[in-house]
Amino acid sequence: MDTVKIGLCGLGTVGTGVVKVLRDHKARIKHMLGCDIVIEKILVNDISKPRDVAIDRSWLTSDPSELVDHDEIDVIVEVMGGIDGTHELLERALKNKKHIVTANKDLMALHGKTLLRLAKENQCDILYDASIAGGIPIVRTLVDGLASDHIEKVMGIVNGTTNYIMTKMTKEGLDFDVVLKEAQELGFAEADPSADVDGLDAARKMVLLANLAFKMELNLEDVTVKGIRQVTQEDINFAKSLGYTIKLIGIAAMDNYKAEVTVEPTLLPQDHPLALVNNEFNAVFVHGEAVGETMFYGPGAGSLPTATAVVSDLMEVVRHLRLGISGRSYIEPQFKRKLKADHEKFSRHFIRLGVEDQAGAFQEITNVFSENDVSFAKILQLPAKKKGRAEIVMVTHHISQEQLLKSMQALEKLTVVDRLISHYRVDGEE
Amino acid sequence: MDTVKIGLCGLGTVGTGVVKVLRDHKARIKHMLGCDIVIEKILVNDISKPRDVAIDRSWLTSDPSELVDHDEIDVIVEVMGGIDGTHELLERALKNKKHIVTANKDLMALHGKTLLRLAKENQCDILYDASIAGGIPIVRTLVDGLASDHIEKVMGIVNGTTNYIMTKMTKEGLDFDVVLKEAQELGFAEADPSADVDGLDAARKMVLLANLAFKMELNLEDVTVKGIRQVTQEDINFAKSLGYTIKLIGIAAMDNYKAEVTVEPTLLPQDHPLALVNNEFNAVFVHGEAVGETMFYGPGAGSLPTATAVVSDLMEVVRHLRLGISGRSYIEPQFKRKLKADHEKFSRHFIRLGVEDQAGAFQEITNVFSENDVSFAKILQLPAKKKGRAEIVMVTHHISQEQLLKSMQALEKLTVVDRLISHYRVDGEE
Repeated sequence: MDTVKIGLCGLGTVGTGVVKVLRDHKARIKHMLGCDIVIEKILVNDISKPRDVAIDRSWLTSDPSELVDHDEIDVIVEVMGGIDGTHELLERALKNKKHIVTANKDLMALHGKTLLRLAKENQCDILYDASIAGGIPIVRTLVDGLASDHIEKVMGIVNGTTNYIMTKMTKEGLDFDVVLKEAQELGFAEADPSADVDGLDAARKMVLLANLAFKMELNLEDVTVKGIRQVTQEDINFAKSLGYTIKLIGIAAMDNYKAEVTVEPTLLPQDHPLALVNNEFNAVFVHGEAVGETMFYGPGAGSLPTATAVVSDLMEVVRHLRLGISGRSYIEPQFKRKLKADHEKFSRHFIRLGVEDQAGAFQEITNVFSENDVSFAKILQLPAKKKGRAEIVMVTHHISQEQLLKSMQALEKLTVVDRLISHYRVDGEE
Repeated sequence: MDTVKIGLCGLGTVGTGVVKVLRDHKARIKHMLGCDIVIEKILVNDISKPRDVAIDRSWLTSDPSELVDHDEIDVIVEVMGGIDGTHELLERALKNKKHIVTANKDLMALHGKTLLRLAKENQCDILYDASIAGGIPIVRTLVDGLASDHIEKVMGIVNGTTNYIMTKMTKEGLDFDVVLKEAQELGFAEADPSADVDGLDAARKMVLLANLAFKMELNLEDVTVKGIRQVTQEDINFAKSLGYTIKLIGIAAMDNYKAEVTVEPTLLPQDHPLALVNNEFNAVFVHGEAVGETMFYGPGAGSLPTATAVVSDLMEVVRHLRLGISGRSYIEPQFKRKLKADHEKFSRHFIRLGVEDQAGAFQEITNVFSENDVSFAKILQLPAKKKGRAEIVMVTHHISQEQLLKSMQALEKLTVVDRLISHYRVDGEE
């Protein structure tokens, strides 16, 4: 086997990168594998469209069967995105004994389980490291590098668009809408930004990370998601004055074999390694029982970074092919899907209230928290802009989600509390 | 094969951690591998000594042949350190077809080449991820995760002791000797600290990283090494005022298939990801042609972090054994050992001079640099404590090592220059 032929589905940003990496690093790849990887066919919508990369026009086709039914193609590299049609295509490919490399987080978050099992049945590999954090080889790290450890928590900045927005808001004091518009103009945010700014993209990645870390089969619906649209400059400034930075953080935690996965704007201590990850960069922070704290940092998206991860996965598929061990790396989940109940989810919280500035108001508020056994690490009271009003900002010690919700409900009934302005999770400290 | 038997050489800090990780994560390991890993024998100096971990006393032996000649032992896990005797032991193990996992950087830096070849000849695996950066799975990342990329530069904080010292000096304004003493009392530095503070430990790790990253066979003697003993509070403060942090950084860079490997105190911009790595933590920053900047951060030493890396490697060896692909992952170096000459080594430099505070002194100094085509990004002149004297601190643009050395020689001849107080490499910016 001197040559492995691949079918590339998609020739957009990542697909173009894959063509370039295969071409520019041909010698390195051949040296490491002992064989060449060549593109046999590329699936595109429009075969006549001009392309940004030099390709052999005869590679192009708009007919999927020219790839998935092709006798000589061993590996399908899927970088075209989409869910239903793509799912069908990859199922057909697996049934035809084609191995798969994909960068499609949406698909893997929704159908990963069935695709992984189907791959195993057909003795095929399906690798998807590029789908989670672009250029950061996080799947390998969780599966192999930390194989011997019991991973207790994964915290990630896994969406570049929201990290760019939060960085700009924090460093330049600009409002969300202004930064979003700028990000759209620069191409860091989509015209319809909701998958990013509402946290869905991060949620898809976190469910993949949680399943890898905890050897479980969680679903996308198991993730609690809150986006960044409601984060204000006041929130950021209050956080700063208490020593925190606000980031959109995905958190997956396991205690007693019960999991919790959330994506939400979270306050981190300013010197936490994740607090220092800026702009469009991604990072995944892993806490293992034995290893302690580790972090993996890099570009979360982009043509060449993502293509690097895709081609590195492709090289592993080819290595397995040549060693005759394809489809042997799948590991069944070790634990049943079990989620923490609200009284088992512990965290610190930042709570910001608008209150009447009158004698006894503070007392009434602290009474509510005392009744729910909630105590505080930090409290800050400042006069509000409106006369006779004040703002109270508190950071709790570790409390359960149940304690939080009960306290909130009781606070809303107090007449001295005008409104609950905002509340965020606080993480990354003891 | 329901059980793989191992021989553990060494029951010190890391060895104890290995016993604990194998015991505490037994179920996870069995789930992932489909078999148990059991300790058959442990090589120690003193079999009667009390131990910090529960072990079966019958495992202990002081006779190496009970491990390396044992018929049922498949893998030797070497965590005892040492060079000559250990080298001999591992050679004998390989000839007996035992696979090897080692955390021994000294040995791998000196004899890695021959051990890797001998392993290949005997169809054995030899894995050493734990030897480089403790709990950070950096070998996997460089070899597999970034397999498809052309790695241009690796920068690492790969010695926890010196990073702890530099962090304390920077944050608390204490002198080297004071911090070293404190580090020794806390167990972060050895009684004889020279392997750490003079940079040799970091040099050993950097030569391993360089060979993995560049697919070359460099030797320890190819590394230029400068330790941290001469770094002063004044240097740190001048660096700060120009926007830099001083760290002991290992740098491996390749241009045109010629390499340069150095370990030296280096100024990094204060917001560089490596500048933010504090205390005893390690981090490896990798610049790939396609992926751009990535960084891997974690504990560089310690019983359980290092044991995690050792056992993760052990699991890979066992996986290979069960798949029948042992000894198949060795890849010959791709490039001949070639080093950059002085005129090919480019970098910025921080230069600090004590000068006479008189008209024309500055002119004379800048003339020397102009004659060598050296220009500056930053210049700072301040009066020195001694009357009639001043200090000049400069940061050059990118210049060659040759330009630097010529300028230094010419400066020493100037009567207006009292002395060259210090000079450091500046890296991590364009």
